[in-house]
Amino acid sequence: MDKKMKVTPWEVSGEIDYDKLIKEFGVQKIDSKILDRIKRHTKDLHFMLRRGVFFSHRDLNWLLDEYEKGNKFFLYTGRGPSGRVQLGHLQTWYFTKWLQEKFGVELWFQFTDDEKFLFTDKSYDEIQKWTHDNMLDAIAVGFDPKKTHFLVDTKHASLLYPEAIKFAKKINFSTVKAAFGFTNDYNIGQIFYTSMQAVPAIVPSILNKKNIPCLIPLAIDQDPHFRVARDVYPKLGYYKPAIVHGMFLPPLTGTGGKMSSSKESSAIFSTDSPKEVETKIRKYAFSGGRDTVEEHRKKGGNPDVDVSFQYLRMFFEPEDKKLGKIEEDYRSGKLLTGELKEYLIKKINAFLAEHQKRREIAKKEVDKFIFKM
Amino acid sequence: MDKKMKVTPWEVSGEIDYDKLIKEFGVQKIDSKILDRIKRHTKDLHFMLRRGVFFSHRDLNWLLDEYEKGNKFFLYTGRGPSGRVQLGHLQTWYFTKWLQEKFGVELWFQFTDDEKFLFTDKSYDEIQKWTHDNMLDAIAVGFDPKKTHFLVDTKHASLLYPEAIKFAKKINFSTVKAAFGFTNDYNIGQIFYTSMQAVPAIVPSILNKKNIPCLIPLAIDQDPHFRVARDVYPKLGYYKPAIVHGMFLPPLTGTGGKMSSSKESSAIFSTDSPKEVETKIRKYAFSGGRDTVEEHRKKGGNPDVDVSFQYLRMFFEPEDKKLGKIEEDYRSGKLLTGELKEYLIKKINAFLAEHQKRREIAKKEVDKFIFKM
Repeated sequence: MDKKMKVTPWEVSGEIDYDKLIKEFGVQKIDSKILDRIKRHTKDLHFMLRRGVFFSHRDLNWLLDEYEKGNKFFLYTGRGPSGRVQLGHLQTWYFTKWLQEKFGVELWFQFTDDEKFLFTDKSYDEIQKWTHDNMLDAIAVGFDPKKTHFLVDTKHASLLYPEAIKFAKKINFSTVKAAFGFTNDYNIGQIFYTSMQAVPAIVPSILNKKNIPCLIPLAIDQDPHFRVARDVYPKLGYYKPAIVHGMFLPPLTGTGGKMSSSKESSAIFSTDSPKEVETKIRKYAFSGGRDTVEEHRKKGGNPDVDVSFQYLRMFFEPEDKKLGKIEEDYRSGKLLTGELKEYLIKKINAFLAEHQKRREIAKKEVDKFIFKM
Repeated sequence: MDKKMKVTPWEVSGEIDYDKLIKEFGVQKIDSKILDRIKRHTKDLHFMLRRGVFFSHRDLNWLLDEYEKGNKFFLYTGRGPSGRVQLGHLQTWYFTKWLQEKFGVELWFQFTDDEKFLFTDKSYDEIQKWTHDNMLDAIAVGFDPKKTHFLVDTKHASLLYPEAIKFAKKINFSTVKAAFGFTNDYNIGQIFYTSMQAVPAIVPSILNKKNIPCLIPLAIDQDPHFRVARDVYPKLGYYKPAIVHGMFLPPLTGTGGKMSSSKESSAIFSTDSPKEVETKIRKYAFSGGRDTVEEHRKKGGNPDVDVSFQYLRMFFEPEDKKLGKIEEDYRSGKLLTGELKEYLIKKINAFLAEHQKRREIAKKEVDKFIFKM
């Protein structure tokens, strides 16, 4: 667990120190003052905000200033479609859905198929297959179809590429080298790619021919893209996008790094069966409990490192009272690891049953969501 | 004139040694054997081929093999629209038109507006203006509208970008560094750009879902793009394109480097008035004649370094007999520099009068040429 922390858009490893990330990335902590400000508009606060799962931001006060002046923002998030969608992705998307509902705003959802083609050894066709597959999950989240627009980098290149080169012209190789750790061996598509990720934050402004503020909810590993593009937005005449950063849902095997689609044993996928969820949680979910029941009863468990507890806290137990009780009982030894796991399994399976039902329906709704140029 | 030769897509300078370029670039000289082979199909030979203005090639024998098997090729050339079109561009395009006529083939004409935006300090809007302007010149050349398709990199990005990333994935920064002399200060759009130039050579194959050979006529400074992309084509399942390389039309001021749109005194533009042509030739065209009429009559002039003579040879005097007479008379001192210049002025102005007439008509024909996706 002492492994050196590394957080880039393409690698998250080591024990994550979020306070250190806030400093290194130069972002602001989401504090009670800004939470109060959000609450004035949303009435309640999403539990992921209350519990600091979305923990830091850029320019959120400015965004709320604009909102309060009647200058509505839009949301922008996305997905690199290189495999199945897992809980870590869904966490951000369900939070984004809450933002869409509470603020009544548009969402632009980017599928970075070019990125995933360029950064993996997967074929173009395979990435296209995952793009379609992953859209089903995004639709299943329940975004408002009238207010949600999917952009696919290759499909919408005539819209995105002409803008991307405007960012690209102001970013040199030294900059991406420093921001992402690229070397001369990186391919020229990888080097260019960050420009494409910058664009959706200005698409509504282009289409409406006026500046519209943008809020990007994302896991913090994606922040370097916007750190690089950030200074470019005003140079092109646009607002810098505001950002809220989420923590990583930990991998099943422990609290370092993040849940990853590429490691089967680390992730629970959106299409996993109840049986698979059960097996994975039982078999892999790292426990903060004691070695024996006797010891656990006597000394209690540690929810801070217990993956099952963390999943409840970060995603599957919205009710603070219930979560508090679980934490208390686990710490005291009243609640055993097995019991905690069973509770989580039930929660996840209930959640996935609903998600998977909507995912089936989504198969007929893809066209509705893809932006018509 | 001893300045070190430099030939890249973005800089041509120094005394050009074409034999050295053939060796450095690893291309083949166009010899009498291959000229005979071309002649079998075209009946006559374009004077730019007879006189070695198009002087080297890649894979032309293979292209003719395929052609003779009934596997027709298509042509691909282009223009980086950053300013007015000048005679150096028109030279390649008129030759390309001859190829289109003689072989009865399609032409794909790429406007690399992204490139010119990324490699100059011009604004996006200015480049768009030049793109439209330069299209008028391409149309005025007289390409068959039924067989000619304009691609604009930004406008057709949904077609080009998804293919460009397939090239990009197989080209790293070290490679473009070596091929183009890029440094870490180059912007990430410049680094990516060569992938976009690779794509038109496969567009007809994609659209027709079968492999179609491609012939690219170009000035040799553009060859490095294809040298970089060349090995990638077969990896993606396509033929390597064949290429014929043209020499540079020299700048007015001398035989080093190439005619350049960015130096007013070095170029004659497609839209120059008869008066402007007259003034430029009289004032700037480097002379191979002697300092005084007396000396010239006695010792004769040197047509090899005389820009006016070279323009006649390379572009404006298609008739070998007339050109031979001019050369003889100039060498002997019978023809004076002033007389040679007057002859060239008449030739260019007659040519431009026709070109400009068609250029006016072209204003209503742009839509016909732009490829409909």
